Amino acid sequence: MAMTAQRRLESLPRAESLRLLSTVSLGRLVFTHLALPAIRPVNHAVAGEQVIIRAYLGTAISAAVGDRSGTVVAYEADLIDPETHLGWSVIIVGRAARLTDQAEAARYREVLRPWVADGADDIIAIQADMVDGFRLVETAA
Amino acid sequence: MAMTAQRRLESLPRAESLRLLSTVSLGRLVFTHLALPAIRPVNHAVAGEQVIIRAYLGTAISAAVGDRSGTVVAYEADLIDPETHLGWSVIIVGRAARLTDQAEAARYREVLRPWVADGADDIIAIQADMVDGFRLVETAA
Repeated sequence: MAMTAQRRLESLPRAESLRLLSTVSLGRLVFTHLALPAIRPVNHAVAGEQVIIRAYLGTAISAAVGDRSGTVVAYEADLIDPETHLGWSVIIVGRAARLTDQAEAARYREVLRPWVADGADDIIAIQADMVDGFRLVETAA
Repeated sequence: MAMTAQRRLESLPRAESLRLLSTVSLGRLVFTHLALPAIRPVNHAVAGEQVIIRAYLGTAISAAVGDRSGTVVAYEADLIDPETHLGWSVIIVGRAARLTDQAEAARYREVLRPWVADGADDIIAIQADMVDGFRLVETAA
């Protein structure tokens, strides 16, 4: 029976983790806001060794991420079945910075659909300094 | 056309946010690990003003959360359509502590199905000190 089957956590290689991340458009940015842990769902694109996000909750996220690469954030995306809880999760930890190249930012605005028209519209690049991916698989009991 | 429709972010009242949280079983715990932002998907139950989780990635989460309520963590769950990006997200920030009452912990072990049999099996209660919920709705353009 599925509910009592054993599950195993399999680590995923870095390249496979980044590939899985690129197959979904929604994830969660983790940062510090007013000295407290903060998390916001955003949409993303993967570009090589960077995760590019478009901040739709402007103030909180943009205040945490400066124009220079320095603030360390985490980013997580997953595809986990709500019933069986099988699936994968990829977590990235790295430096985040607002994209200052306006041509590059404009290009990502084409790709990353805004969620709300709230005026706060920064394009933020997160370096995939650490990539941690795993898959939850069912094993024969 | 759905892709160009305007979206609005609606804040949700605290009670409605906790109710929505209780309708899903999967969320993400946000904490600090080795001075870096960390995030892990876990499953949860809502009990009054507390979110109860069962840690399946033992070491990282359990090291961050002590036996006494003190470590402040964030918890997020959402139900957002991957295509339309409409849906809701609820974020809780509060003190976390391992449940030391063994009878209570055993009761939650009945409710919270383990993802992997890895031996690390703490039941952690997060106080809903701050509750921040919103819904992404489509508005007539």
